[in-house]
Amino acid sequence: MNKPVISLSGVFPPVPTPFDAEGEVAIRKLIENLERWNQYDLSGYVVLGSNGEAGFLSVEEKLRVLEAARQAIPPDKLMIAGAGCESTRQTIALTRQAAQAGADAALLVTPHYYDAKMTPGALAHHYEAVADGAPIPVLLYTVPKFTHVDIDTATVARLARHPNIIGIKDTGGNMAKMADTVRLTGPDFQVLAGSAGFFLAGLTLGAVGGTLALANVAPQKCLDLHRLFKAGQMEEAAALQRWMIPVNAAITARFGIAGLKAALEMLGYYGGPVRSPLLALTGEEQRALWEVLTEGGLL
Amino acid sequence: MNKPVISLSGVFPPVPTPFDAEGEVAIRKLIENLERWNQYDLSGYVVLGSNGEAGFLSVEEKLRVLEAARQAIPPDKLMIAGAGCESTRQTIALTRQAAQAGADAALLVTPHYYDAKMTPGALAHHYEAVADGAPIPVLLYTVPKFTHVDIDTATVARLARHPNIIGIKDTGGNMAKMADTVRLTGPDFQVLAGSAGFFLAGLTLGAVGGTLALANVAPQKCLDLHRLFKAGQMEEAAALQRWMIPVNAAITARFGIAGLKAALEMLGYYGGPVRSPLLALTGEEQRALWEVLTEGGLL
Amino acid sequence: MNKPVISLSGVFPPVPTPFDAEGEVAIRKLIENLERWNQYDLSGYVVLGSNGEAGFLSVEEKLRVLEAARQAIPPDKLMIAGAGCESTRQTIALTRQAAQAGADAALLVTPHYYDAKMTPGALAHHYEAVADGAPIPVLLYTVPKFTHVDIDTATVARLARHPNIIGIKDTGGNMAKMADTVRLTGPDFQVLAGSAGFFLAGLTLGAVGGTLALANVAPQKCLDLHRLFKAGQMEEAAALQRWMIPVNAAITARFGIAGLKAALEMLGYYGGPVRSPLLALTGEEQRALWEVLTEGGLL
Amino acid sequence: MNKPVISLSGVFPPVPTPFDAEGEVAIRKLIENLERWNQYDLSGYVVLGSNGEAGFLSVEEKLRVLEAARQAIPPDKLMIAGAGCESTRQTIALTRQAAQAGADAALLVTPHYYDAKMTPGALAHHYEAVADGAPIPVLLYTVPKFTHVDIDTATVARLARHPNIIGIKDTGGNMAKMADTVRLTGPDFQVLAGSAGFFLAGLTLGAVGGTLALANVAPQKCLDLHRLFKAGQMEEAAALQRWMIPVNAAITARFGIAGLKAALEMLGYYGGPVRSPLLALTGEEQRALWEVLTEGGLL
Repeated sequence: MNKPVISLSGVFPPVPTPFDAEGEVAIRKLIENLERWNQYDLSGYVVLGSNGEAGFLSVEEKLRVLEAARQAIPPDKLMIAGAGCESTRQTIALTRQAAQAGADAALLVTPHYYDAKMTPGALAHHYEAVADGAPIPVLLYTVPKFTHVDIDTATVARLARHPNIIGIKDTGGNMAKMADTVRLTGPDFQVLAGSAGFFLAGLTLGAVGGTLALANVAPQKCLDLHRLFKAGQMEEAAALQRWMIPVNAAITARFGIAGLKAALEMLGYYGGPVRSPLLALTGEEQRALWEVLTEGGLL
Repeated sequence: MNKPVISLSGVFPPVPTPFDAEGEVAIRKLIENLERWNQYDLSGYVVLGSNGEAGFLSVEEKLRVLEAARQAIPPDKLMIAGAGCESTRQTIALTRQAAQAGADAALLVTPHYYDAKMTPGALAHHYEAVADGAPIPVLLYTVPKFTHVDIDTATVARLARHPNIIGIKDTGGNMAKMADTVRLTGPDFQVLAGSAGFFLAGLTLGAVGGTLALANVAPQKCLDLHRLFKAGQMEEAAALQRWMIPVNAAITARFGIAGLKAALEMLGYYGGPVRSPLLALTGEEQRALWEVLTEGGLL
Repeated sequence: MNKPVISLSGVFPPVPTPFDAEGEVAIRKLIENLERWNQYDLSGYVVLGSNGEAGFLSVEEKLRVLEAARQAIPPDKLMIAGAGCESTRQTIALTRQAAQAGADAALLVTPHYYDAKMTPGALAHHYEAVADGAPIPVLLYTVPKFTHVDIDTATVARLARHPNIIGIKDTGGNMAKMADTVRLTGPDFQVLAGSAGFFLAGLTLGAVGGTLALANVAPQKCLDLHRLFKAGQMEEAAALQRWMIPVNAAITARFGIAGLKAALEMLGYYGGPVRSPLLALTGEEQRALWEVLTEGGLL
Repeated sequence: MNKPVISLSGVFPPVPTPFDAEGEVAIRKLIENLERWNQYDLSGYVVLGSNGEAGFLSVEEKLRVLEAARQAIPPDKLMIAGAGCESTRQTIALTRQAAQAGADAALLVTPHYYDAKMTPGALAHHYEAVADGAPIPVLLYTVPKFTHVDIDTATVARLARHPNIIGIKDTGGNMAKMADTVRLTGPDFQVLAGSAGFFLAGLTLGAVGGTLALANVAPQKCLDLHRLFKAGQMEEAAALQRWMIPVNAAITARFGIAGLKAALEMLGYYGGPVRSPLLALTGEEQRALWEVLTEGGLL
């Protein structure tokens, strides 16, 4: 095996896609946010992931977002482009377009509409076909809370042997599965924890980094946790991990992308509206979010 | 309330989208299939539904399919176009394009990627916005086995009051819910059973018809069941309903769209390949399907 | 096959177990309730089912309840005793005790704690062993909302061949499954709809009757529906079925057994408290229940 | 708060209940197994937990098991008795009997049959009532894979303030939830990881120990992991954790209690049969289990 030399070690925020008041993609705001995040020691960004409302964008919008983001992301930071679609052919096409737009790697969510048919064989065939056709390295991406599909570890192990599949973002939160993924794959297959809710647990088991929604609103805290872990300061790391839980929950499961964007607003980034059918936070939800951020010391 | 005068009574096959050996849309084959189905007393067709692999098609392909289908579907039969997308704006846009292509109505699957946020309020807002912006009547479409989202009956009742929302295709199979939907909505809101597995039960509770995958492979049987029900021949209807179960299961849950297409082949229609990541039937699965169709007297 | 001659046709309320203010079994109240229900043309009763809080009773309490109920239930009405336990040996023992207490048949819920291991083979072996050891006929009982276990139709068909297994109470609500159960079993295997939410649908597909929580609070309505169905008055039956939905929901999923007991109080039966950890209705819930019963014309 | 001084730090095997060839409780075999486990530095045992087939035992059998186990468990090792039942009153009664039999603490699984009604309020009321009535300290026990019920962290935090509730066995595997439990409870509320699949992750986040099915078959490995963690040898701990995954899976989810007992046999302990409806391993399953244990270096 001779994988492309791309290190996924570190912290990657899956950045939201900013929209203006009319709901159009706000390219300028995306660039400004990235410029601010660039001041942190983040290893790169996921653009057009689940937190990027990717499913709400046309192909044309997606390409504009990727091109603009690439301009704002310095060459020493990775741009990982969300490029998974329902069909294999769509996924190959979008991955190629993402590569042309300057993406360093593609993050490929499991197809999921026909979830009962997303058998190990179907997923293996899909990912191998995309990896064969992709001009850039690809990462598997499993996020059962959205897709109701998971990739079993035997299939991950099989796919890890493909020279162009370099890792997985695992947002399932099953630590036995994450440990088994590390066990069954070689050192050049890289596992990313997909949520700040289990970042430290993931690192402990062999993950090399994380793509964390929380890294949008608290990048330094996420970097600190990684550093504490590497330094063996486990008690401090655990305390920081526990601190993360309510803040992370607020901008993910509890208030969703609308919460993530509202939190960014509160912190001086551009947040802006979500696209329908997602709903803006109510006033009460805004206040609850404010309290969580205040109690967490972020405001 | 003054709903558009479109009767959904009867049987509607949700037709598969034919692909050729290269995986390209096979327009000619679609037309030939429709011409054959036109010989039956079907009330119309659902084009680009879940069985049409709609999520695997580009917008351009979708429009070509709709335009060709409209040419093949006589004016006295309805063309109901699947037009639901993840975002409200995408759904409005596609519904308008479907109308231009000649669709009589649009079938709008629930958005579902962010399923935990598809609250009653979010769904109501979504459907009202689309119905407001749609030049043709729209139908709600709930299919939890694929989407893991359902529309609660109170929300259906609210949406039924919108002048441009004329009905629902309910594939959930919860008969208490279907009965309650009929109870809570007026006579000009039309309920369609979404599966041959509960067609008779749905009719009994007040559904006016069905959009049935089975109607692709056994249109006359589906029409017969409807006729027997209307004639009050309940025992014969029940026997026919029970006959349907294994055949319907084979072309839906058991073997999926690949099974539906393989069954069409066996029956002399064009079936053709499914798009990846769906897999073709194995030889063993083909034989099992053949047996089911043979035992059912279709071969 | 030569099954015991017990007809399950008709309506069976699964009666609640009354407790006094101290939480002790209130035998006298059970008898009084039964005497009142006896005035209706019910075919019998399920004693110690899910609505009977059976899991909260000791074996001694169960036997006292069965013995008392038998005294109050006339010989021409069936007493079906809930006797399913987690282990096969417990189930055999309780079924024998129920027979001694005068039960005509035993209703055997699927074991479920180790639900992932309740494979078709495990369930088949369990039920065959119990049926072999039971001095009275037994019924299968599947109620996935409580047990998260279901019996597949192939296994039901296998079990239907056992001379001492006379039927199934199916509370799953999957009409395709119920139709298939009727299809795959002979005429001497009797299917009971397990909820008023799909009583008419079940009858339509071949169920011979129902064990309906609703029959505790609205016995005549349930009997009427059965009569209308048998008379072929499908529209009237459907209207009555639709009427049932909100009332039935209130005393089952919505307010649970506490709601069922509160409804009985409101209707002049003895209701009394539920056992902890079930909670009594709040005042607000009581009012909502009252409204449902009033709107339904029961108060 | 002034909790009873019982340390839950360390490793606790949830021991299986041995049965003889006739399916009767094999007290002598239980004692012999315990004597062998006593040679390890285990902190104690869970008797009559999920792995103890507790739901298959009569109350009389449970008491015999507890009394015998207490004789075999030295005073410096804890005996934690599984005593959770469906009703509050049953649970109080069994907890008292367990205390009389010498249990140091009671492990109380969530009631679960009426799972939709196991609201935070219902669970809080249940556990507070049991803790009030229990002569020994109690632990909460959440195991959603069996019960389909979980205790939310706010309720755990509320219950942690009760002087007689000293901890929780959390088998859910949600690391964000475990971290939050530690965060929201004081230092005298002790969290136990409920599975070897996430033992290291749990320790990292603040769990004090684990009740691990794997500790029955590989006690020293489990103790080693705990020691490595405390010594800060994280890489070695992670490697050992990863080693555990397939072995642990084999004796839990994959082959169940029958697998656990078969593994004990292979290792020279007494395993013996499971009670029906659980099934013995097939020959093929036995071979697969043997392979796992052999590859794991245990044979």
